[in-house]
Amino acid sequence: MARIGIYGATGYTGFELIKLLVRRPEIEIAFATARSAVGKRLSDIFPTLIDLPLVGVEQADLHNVDLIFTCLPHNTPDLIPLVQAAMDAGVKVIDFSDTFRLEDLDTYARWRTKDHPAPELQSVAVYGLPELHRERIRKAHLVANTGCYPLTAILPLRPLAQAGLLTDSPVIVDSKSGVSGAGRSLSLKTHFGEAHETFSAYTIGRTHRHLPEMEQETGLHIIFSPHLLPVYRGILSTIYVNTKPAVSEDDVRGAYAVYANEPFVTLLPQGRLPELRHVVGSMNIAIGVHRVEEGHYILVACVDNLIKGASGQAVQSMNLMLGMEETAGLR
Amino acid sequence: MARIGIYGATGYTGFELIKLLVRRPEIEIAFATARSAVGKRLSDIFPTLIDLPLVGVEQADLHNVDLIFTCLPHNTPDLIPLVQAAMDAGVKVIDFSDTFRLEDLDTYARWRTKDHPAPELQSVAVYGLPELHRERIRKAHLVANTGCYPLTAILPLRPLAQAGLLTDSPVIVDSKSGVSGAGRSLSLKTHFGEAHETFSAYTIGRTHRHLPEMEQETGLHIIFSPHLLPVYRGILSTIYVNTKPAVSEDDVRGAYAVYANEPFVTLLPQGRLPELRHVVGSMNIAIGVHRVEEGHYILVACVDNLIKGASGQAVQSMNLMLGMEETAGLR
Amino acid sequence: MARIGIYGATGYTGFELIKLLVRRPEIEIAFATARSAVGKRLSDIFPTLIDLPLVGVEQADLHNVDLIFTCLPHNTPDLIPLVQAAMDAGVKVIDFSDTFRLEDLDTYARWRTKDHPAPELQSVAVYGLPELHRERIRKAHLVANTGCYPLTAILPLRPLAQAGLLTDSPVIVDSKSGVSGAGRSLSLKTHFGEAHETFSAYTIGRTHRHLPEMEQETGLHIIFSPHLLPVYRGILSTIYVNTKPAVSEDDVRGAYAVYANEPFVTLLPQGRLPELRHVVGSMNIAIGVHRVEEGHYILVACVDNLIKGASGQAVQSMNLMLGMEETAGLR
Amino acid sequence: MARIGIYGATGYTGFELIKLLVRRPEIEIAFATARSAVGKRLSDIFPTLIDLPLVGVEQADLHNVDLIFTCLPHNTPDLIPLVQAAMDAGVKVIDFSDTFRLEDLDTYARWRTKDHPAPELQSVAVYGLPELHRERIRKAHLVANTGCYPLTAILPLRPLAQAGLLTDSPVIVDSKSGVSGAGRSLSLKTHFGEAHETFSAYTIGRTHRHLPEMEQETGLHIIFSPHLLPVYRGILSTIYVNTKPAVSEDDVRGAYAVYANEPFVTLLPQGRLPELRHVVGSMNIAIGVHRVEEGHYILVACVDNLIKGASGQAVQSMNLMLGMEETAGLR
Repeated sequence: MARIGIYGATGYTGFELIKLLVRRPEIEIAFATARSAVGKRLSDIFPTLIDLPLVGVEQADLHNVDLIFTCLPHNTPDLIPLVQAAMDAGVKVIDFSDTFRLEDLDTYARWRTKDHPAPELQSVAVYGLPELHRERIRKAHLVANTGCYPLTAILPLRPLAQAGLLTDSPVIVDSKSGVSGAGRSLSLKTHFGEAHETFSAYTIGRTHRHLPEMEQETGLHIIFSPHLLPVYRGILSTIYVNTKPAVSEDDVRGAYAVYANEPFVTLLPQGRLPELRHVVGSMNIAIGVHRVEEGHYILVACVDNLIKGASGQAVQSMNLMLGMEETAGLR
Repeated sequence: MARIGIYGATGYTGFELIKLLVRRPEIEIAFATARSAVGKRLSDIFPTLIDLPLVGVEQADLHNVDLIFTCLPHNTPDLIPLVQAAMDAGVKVIDFSDTFRLEDLDTYARWRTKDHPAPELQSVAVYGLPELHRERIRKAHLVANTGCYPLTAILPLRPLAQAGLLTDSPVIVDSKSGVSGAGRSLSLKTHFGEAHETFSAYTIGRTHRHLPEMEQETGLHIIFSPHLLPVYRGILSTIYVNTKPAVSEDDVRGAYAVYANEPFVTLLPQGRLPELRHVVGSMNIAIGVHRVEEGHYILVACVDNLIKGASGQAVQSMNLMLGMEETAGLR
Repeated sequence: MARIGIYGATGYTGFELIKLLVRRPEIEIAFATARSAVGKRLSDIFPTLIDLPLVGVEQADLHNVDLIFTCLPHNTPDLIPLVQAAMDAGVKVIDFSDTFRLEDLDTYARWRTKDHPAPELQSVAVYGLPELHRERIRKAHLVANTGCYPLTAILPLRPLAQAGLLTDSPVIVDSKSGVSGAGRSLSLKTHFGEAHETFSAYTIGRTHRHLPEMEQETGLHIIFSPHLLPVYRGILSTIYVNTKPAVSEDDVRGAYAVYANEPFVTLLPQGRLPELRHVVGSMNIAIGVHRVEEGHYILVACVDNLIKGASGQAVQSMNLMLGMEETAGLR
Repeated sequence: MARIGIYGATGYTGFELIKLLVRRPEIEIAFATARSAVGKRLSDIFPTLIDLPLVGVEQADLHNVDLIFTCLPHNTPDLIPLVQAAMDAGVKVIDFSDTFRLEDLDTYARWRTKDHPAPELQSVAVYGLPELHRERIRKAHLVANTGCYPLTAILPLRPLAQAGLLTDSPVIVDSKSGVSGAGRSLSLKTHFGEAHETFSAYTIGRTHRHLPEMEQETGLHIIFSPHLLPVYRGILSTIYVNTKPAVSEDDVRGAYAVYANEPFVTLLPQGRLPELRHVVGSMNIAIGVHRVEEGHYILVACVDNLIKGASGQAVQSMNLMLGMEETAGLR
């Protein structure tokens, strides 16, 4: 039996996390906080079989809690104190923000244009991608859950980079994400009339704050163009890579053998490309590989941004951190 | 040449109004106000061929202006002073809010649970439905533009009520509206993640604030259930009426002869029902009539809520008020 | 361990059924047929973790099979022989078509304008709505899975009808369904360009083929207007009833006590109405009750048409027929 | 007064064409053909103010007709005879298919894997892109209307290629199109349940049949990835180019001066990117330019695929061919 606390239960990732946890008898949700809904119950917001009281941060009792998830909006001022308090109390932490994802403090400072707010916490944080850092996650006390966009670039690119198949020219990652990636906070960009039945690019090139994660985990130089899709869930990334001379399609496909035993990574057979509907609602990341011509390949990767791209990924890390079956509750 | 002022140019109805006006060489837009965008240009918000400077309310110069449109959110505090100032300056007014739509001050007070803020303005206001009040609109100085939901109930029901074909039992108006009807102001209800790929009923029965308009213009007792459709534009209302004994389908269809010369009302032939896509982008209201069985009929009516349901309707009234061709700029 | 056969595995209900069954270790899928995809595997059509070979009807081996699901399009000519062969072989059958739903052969003949094709099968068929016919389903050899629209009318209306609270005037059921209800067969009506970003009513009044089911199970006279929503899943029905004099809101809400122990029926508290997103992806039917005024109530009911409205409902019946826990695999 | 004939009036491009033509008093539609709807009227299919009788191809009378539009599905067998007959009768032709777009017969044979069906017609055909071939279109008797995808690559890329700013490395065109681009013919790919709330890539790399048009008109080597967006209208292309050393952002932006007087091409100011909703419903192509880093630029281009990408483009060519104002009926 594990006791879990959730900070930020009424955002999209918090709610998805609860849906994944309530079906597991071995998990008890010790508390769920929601700043704007203190005193209400989850059923007041979403009237289903899932129900929980919602409390304020100050009412969250860490006593006897094994692990907390912090699913708070970027730049929540009390994030660092919350994480520090949990760590001090011996409670493990999985944080959904991008605060603890960059190992190099200089990279952090350059991209965020400010110093890291908690270097000592950063020094013990592990990047929460089990396919790459499984053993470190098992032992971690603080895991930085991956960004949803980065996941769709890192998992397809890392094996090719590791195998030394790519040239030095920039890799192009053209990503398209459903609107839930922008969260439940109100903004004109995510207002129905502005996001529906349209399509747009934003923070393209080398301006998106999650680009450095991609580069950290792949060692590649990346040009990244996110786009906003008029769907609720899912990310599809179309990735353009240049391979070194004499690299064959077998070399490229062969590099993905590293994922042969991964429960949630599916390499599609030659000639097939993944679509959002193949993965939405599941933990799968599906990857298709297309040879364009000598030296040029296209990779297409799809995930459900709220599951493998966020809350499911966090549960996978939690399972590792608490010594449970890695895939428990995720099939 | 007519000079026009627009208050609230960056909401959905204001923007639609501008699109309808800029194509007309005989119309000059004297000013366009936008509280949140003073000092910008319309092209900063929507980069197209349409462009205008955006000013604050206090910079709006009524001198030499013939008519103003007030496209402001409900309960804008300065609406009454704006309307009063224009009337005092001899400028005609078409107001998009529901402030001036109810002729009876007691009905207003009962439904709004407060007294009417400007009874003397109300006494000269005309309900802006040209099909019913064409001659009064021609002479009006203050027109209350109709609500979009009410339009879809009033135009199908009025001829049957006027012809005395209906019993006393309540009429049921089951309406489904695109999200643009809720405007451009942010709200959780119109956040993409809450309004997309779902469907819901709200303020059903006898609780929606635009129900009394429907009853005023039809003389009927109405049960009204609005629903939020996951589309941007359009309203479809399915209306259930009970007819008196011996009323035939010919009687029902015949009642619509009053619209024979109406440019924007289309009665579909027997066996056809209108769909949203038939009217979206146009000024048409399309009406289908289905006989269920003796005494029971269903009416289905569709409009584009932003055009015939709002800005196009307002332009139709403007054309009448300024002595222009009624259909100018609306085909 | 139960062995199951599926006819029509690549339609939307067949595929949903497979998703519900594959997660259950105690269920073995003996065969899955797909006319248009014989010789392929399910992963050729939908590349996920779920995989099965697809065979032709003639390759389906009933030997040692406990139960079959027939998820075939309406009017499939070989449905009756398939069902008969299974029954003869002692295999239980759950049929998704509307062939066996009407107990009265005259009603069938009048609505289908032809005689019932298999009266002797009809005589042993049970209408597959566990909330109403649980004990009969347990013993049934042939279950007629309910229609998705009828479900949303029968479950809210039956308790009020049984309690004698309603007058004789027609009940109005205004229903809105996602496009998946029309199946995977190609048609102009379900072509993206004709069904997307629009909304329409069809076969309204007393013309839809699933109306007689509603009347059979409720004993009421119903006017039924289905509409096509531009979403994939879900049905919301807005139902207008007239109550007898002196019937109170407590009487109406109290009638739903019959569902107190039902695992999949949720009556919302006063003031709350269900939305599609509350039920999509789940087995729940959520019902909201709104008192309009003396004698007039509105019921709003929502289901996922592919789960509680089709494949989940069938699994619930299967669980009963095979002596399993009724809710197994459906939470 | 010009008399016009339309072959294929009930497809999406045919219908859009009719909407553009009926509002022009100087245009008379002499006939409209529709194979599947002979004997019906356009209002039987779409009940609006627009109405026309629909005839079979054999009833189309070319007498006194000035110009025909052939809006027929790819590979319609009678396209060549229809075009030939019109040319023989002295009637000008604008063809919507991709039959006459490739000037080089060898390129045609290689991409279509068959010889050109009418080389003599090809030899007089002009590629229908007014921004590039205005004077040739004026004098043309046969115009090959551009593909919708190619338009979004050619117009942004041509000025940079012409100015010699680009290196030899492949240009990447990552395009996303609404479903209407696939036409009104039924297919599983465009079935609502398969195209809605999802997103997919298809015929990526160097396999799409409209890639050679792009290369013909730009002289560049292109990698092209089309994707299917779950919207009805609009194409957004994200284009990745490599510039030669010492090419500055001013050089890049300056190259677009060639479009300074183009009525339908809008270059957005620095820092702005176009979105689908900016152009849907209009003739505009909007182009945004983003400098990534030395040597790397991203171009983003948007059009309405049915207007500037198809029927509006054809009307622009028609205006030129018939000596009318080029922008008539297109603002």
